[in-house]
Amino acid sequence: MKALEERILKEGKAIGNDILKVDSFINHQLDIRFMEEIGKEMAILFADVKVDKILTVEASGIAIASVAAKYFDYPLVVFAKKSQPNTMVDDSYTAEAKSFTKGNMCLYRVSKSYINKGENVLIVDDFMASGEASVALAEIVEAAGAKVAGITAVIEKEYQGGSERLRKMGYRVQNLAVIKKIDNGAITFAQE
Amino acid sequence: MKALEERILKEGKAIGNDILKVDSFINHQLDIRFMEEIGKEMAILFADVKVDKILTVEASGIAIASVAAKYFDYPLVVFAKKSQPNTMVDDSYTAEAKSFTKGNMCLYRVSKSYINKGENVLIVDDFMASGEASVALAEIVEAAGAKVAGITAVIEKEYQGGSERLRKMGYRVQNLAVIKKIDNGAITFAQE
Repeated sequence: MKALEERILKEGKAIGNDILKVDSFINHQLDIRFMEEIGKEMAILFADVKVDKILTVEASGIAIASVAAKYFDYPLVVFAKKSQPNTMVDDSYTAEAKSFTKGNMCLYRVSKSYINKGENVLIVDDFMASGEASVALAEIVEAAGAKVAGITAVIEKEYQGGSERLRKMGYRVQNLAVIKKIDNGAITFAQE
Repeated sequence: MKALEERILKEGKAIGNDILKVDSFINHQLDIRFMEEIGKEMAILFADVKVDKILTVEASGIAIASVAAKYFDYPLVVFAKKSQPNTMVDDSYTAEAKSFTKGNMCLYRVSKSYINKGENVLIVDDFMASGEASVALAEIVEAAGAKVAGITAVIEKEYQGGSERLRKMGYRVQNLAVIKKIDNGAITFAQE
């Protein structure tokens, strides 16, 4: 998505070879008008897929999923809650994921009431790095007897292997801005 | 807001005299079409107020603020991040608030880049109980030299004193569903 790549180049802060901060429009301050363009693009990418529900994870994913929903004709949105792996959880599907930014393990939790057998669930997130978050969300979807309709992130750091890992697992992955490398603060996108 | 009260009565789970869970459409699963109605109503309530920015706090507030933004003609949305009070923070405005649901103190943090002097900031949240969250967000707004344009929550538990406290501090507060009491699981709304 050209406009997204341009905005990342203009406002993103690439730090070293790994970190990209997009706090000015996605992760802390939110430009909802621009997020609508992102949501529209996601709906175009998955126009041939039935989406009964959108699943994301708190916190930044909530904004994208909420804004994108209308372009999929308003499926219900569910966000996984994050807690410590030792938290008591009742009647929930859970999966563990390692946080890329924080380094620690995190428990993703979705109440059994909100993902149902047979539903087609689109997984939406802000970033895809090693794919940990998406793998955890997909585990939850499948534990519920539902189907992963696809996986989409606003920004992919391709060199961290997430999309390759997820595609090998059989999932359809379509991300909006795919970063091939970050080299001393310089961002290179993959060819579309 | 009549439709909201009806939905709370139908789907909310009132526990004892204090707790109301609305996980099926606001706090875990999100009904975006219904949230649009909520956002529209917020915009009507504050139609006479200039809103340059919307401020909320992760996690559930993000969905409401994101969906409501378009009815205010797309001001930027900022969500405060929550962390432990001992977290190192640079270049941020911070304020402490006691979490009603978790009981612990929480540090709210907003980067100094995203609230600017002179801006009119509407504070939006899912719940208002004792008003702790709104007080903390208002502190952040004022520390930045900005002005609190108003405070609005989807659901107020009036008997916990938040709106009274905030009005005494001089803020304009307008909430959408105002609960007068929860008595052994039975919900009574304030007269509109």
